[in-house]
Amino acid sequence: MVRKQGPLVHNITNYVVMNNTANALLSAGASPIMAHAPEEMEELVGIVNALVLNIGTLSTPWIKSMLMAGDCARKRGIPVILDPVGAGASTLRTNTAMRIMQTASPAVVRGNGSEIMALCGAGGGTKGVDSTMQAADASDAAAQLARQYGCVVAVTGEEDIVMNGTCSVRIKGGSPLMGRVTGMGCTATALIGAYAAVAESSFAGTVSALAVMATAGGMAAEKAAGPGSFQMHFYDALYVMTREDIEAQVELAVTGCPECGNEGAGQ
Amino acid sequence: MVRKQGPLVHNITNYVVMNNTANALLSAGASPIMAHAPEEMEELVGIVNALVLNIGTLSTPWIKSMLMAGDCARKRGIPVILDPVGAGASTLRTNTAMRIMQTASPAVVRGNGSEIMALCGAGGGTKGVDSTMQAADASDAAAQLARQYGCVVAVTGEEDIVMNGTCSVRIKGGSPLMGRVTGMGCTATALIGAYAAVAESSFAGTVSALAVMATAGGMAAEKAAGPGSFQMHFYDALYVMTREDIEAQVELAVTGCPECGNEGAGQ
Amino acid sequence: MVRKQGPLVHNITNYVVMNNTANALLSAGASPIMAHAPEEMEELVGIVNALVLNIGTLSTPWIKSMLMAGDCARKRGIPVILDPVGAGASTLRTNTAMRIMQTASPAVVRGNGSEIMALCGAGGGTKGVDSTMQAADASDAAAQLARQYGCVVAVTGEEDIVMNGTCSVRIKGGSPLMGRVTGMGCTATALIGAYAAVAESSFAGTVSALAVMATAGGMAAEKAAGPGSFQMHFYDALYVMTREDIEAQVELAVTGCPECGNEGAGQ
Repeated sequence: MVRKQGPLVHNITNYVVMNNTANALLSAGASPIMAHAPEEMEELVGIVNALVLNIGTLSTPWIKSMLMAGDCARKRGIPVILDPVGAGASTLRTNTAMRIMQTASPAVVRGNGSEIMALCGAGGGTKGVDSTMQAADASDAAAQLARQYGCVVAVTGEEDIVMNGTCSVRIKGGSPLMGRVTGMGCTATALIGAYAAVAESSFAGTVSALAVMATAGGMAAEKAAGPGSFQMHFYDALYVMTREDIEAQVELAVTGCPECGNEGAGQ
Repeated sequence: MVRKQGPLVHNITNYVVMNNTANALLSAGASPIMAHAPEEMEELVGIVNALVLNIGTLSTPWIKSMLMAGDCARKRGIPVILDPVGAGASTLRTNTAMRIMQTASPAVVRGNGSEIMALCGAGGGTKGVDSTMQAADASDAAAQLARQYGCVVAVTGEEDIVMNGTCSVRIKGGSPLMGRVTGMGCTATALIGAYAAVAESSFAGTVSALAVMATAGGMAAEKAAGPGSFQMHFYDALYVMTREDIEAQVELAVTGCPECGNEGAGQ
Repeated sequence: MVRKQGPLVHNITNYVVMNNTANALLSAGASPIMAHAPEEMEELVGIVNALVLNIGTLSTPWIKSMLMAGDCARKRGIPVILDPVGAGASTLRTNTAMRIMQTASPAVVRGNGSEIMALCGAGGGTKGVDSTMQAADASDAAAQLARQYGCVVAVTGEEDIVMNGTCSVRIKGGSPLMGRVTGMGCTATALIGAYAAVAESSFAGTVSALAVMATAGGMAAEKAAGPGSFQMHFYDALYVMTREDIEAQVELAVTGCPECGNEGAGQ
């Protein structure tokens, strides 16, 4: 779908990963726009299919641009994807992520366990920030956050979980080398933007994007001699992967709910 | 020439491609400087051989630096190369590109068809912005822009065209994979800076740089399995290519004029 | 030590190399933080093991952040590593580097010969900036700077020298291809941050980091076909290298002193 439709994804993201995420979007068949000037925000958000906000290298002027872009995207009804990089590590990050949650109505939030728990805590929950928490804790926080904001929450790590408050999908695959290349989480978020732009639902788009990430990670790891060659093969894999590759590399476990028509678990 | 003289190229460019373009310049034998603080602009532009201005991730403070740098470069008589990234997509970009055209007297402007047509339209021409325009349209816009500003205009795409208002050269080569790696256009612009710094004329330097780009693209595509490996081989090719590689990879078609001593076409 | 302890290294660095240096830290087993907002500086510097300040793409707001971060790091007693990129090329750079020297009490300064001489000159020495100076000149400047500020000074180039005012170590290894990839010096500085965070002394950490750099450079050059493949193999080498690789790739020459217990030369 992304390859056929080539969605235009606007990213206001951090300096460290701009190049990575633009390349991942291009390799997957989407088109990136990177822009942050308030003067052009309305025009640019007006022509894109999704907006990705990533708070990795935050500063006051960029926060202003993110809030403005989020507002434009919300009014246009295109999906907003939030990556709350480092939420919980500083007050500025936690507070900025919460402001985006509250004003831009993100369709999807993707973070690691600590970041999702930080958002949950700051949002009124009782869990604190804990980077060594159990997967189950992050999973509870994700479900709570999803229900509270009516959005999709993805917690990525060794295993990924995608939740919308009622259903959840666990995605198993990828490679430990993904933790040794900067911006793999940010890349996942950017790809969610591309897939959410073309999928039937933000939930389905998020699952697709994370399955594609895990597939590319698994394929790259088979050829890699370290983080450098891993990253190169990762882009190649995004470009060449087939449906068969995804089936071979990734294991999905769906926990359904009546509303979604997914009544069983582990499908 | 670039390998022998190692020109120093000052770039005020976008965050996405800074690393790419610095590496391309180094691989080709030039030396990059990346700097944007107004406080050091005069000193730094004072020691370089060319200035590249790229508006890819524009903001108000950076516009100020670009105009200041353009002014210093114009006074010193070193070539200024403009990459009007996204001109036509936002008013800020179109207007900023036009201000640079009018105040910095660029020696060369390089863009894709839409960008060049946007500059032409904003400059008084009648063509609007159209990203699906025919090559012939962009070619007309390029010729008009070249005559109006007395500069070289390069339109890059599947086939590249370089014009100075009287002569034109078409450059055929490269690879479709170049469109799946971010910043390949910006890289072309940076290399034009390096070649314009050492060539007899900005026109000749632009043709050389685009021939080198197309050669590296063609050589890299022969070894690549996707955009990741393409990019790696691209830098290697810039570093190792010979005159024979350029002859094997690139097809040039010159449409000449009496003033330039190029009287025939298709040479 | 870095692989076992995984130190957290905070970098306020230039846009060009953020991705490179983050990847190098990850490949070596450390964890990078990239952040520059004054609002979060105290919190973030409060949780890291070393601070790297790199003035490569300086601007007024970033200088403020660097000084603030340096102050927090000094109070906490964690090592501050300064990379005075381009000191001597502009007044802004020379002055900013000197302010950091004077207020942040860096544990280590790493630069090329010209940069170190610029700091020395501006600090009261009599040598000017000279990018074509002899190694001996830079060596004298380094020793003077080390004594004046009570810090470790590393001059990197074809051969690296590490000095603390009384002892010095020369490190031979690496590859000329390192000069054709952007940010290799900045990467060395970032790795010094990681090694200084875990080593017995900043001097020992600096020597280790530069030996690791030279080893990765030598290993990568054996497989590289140019700067592109060199960079890929460089990260792989950081990830896989063993003590035996370091011994095979690098030659150390120690010039000792009674205080340090290193009485001989050429050990």
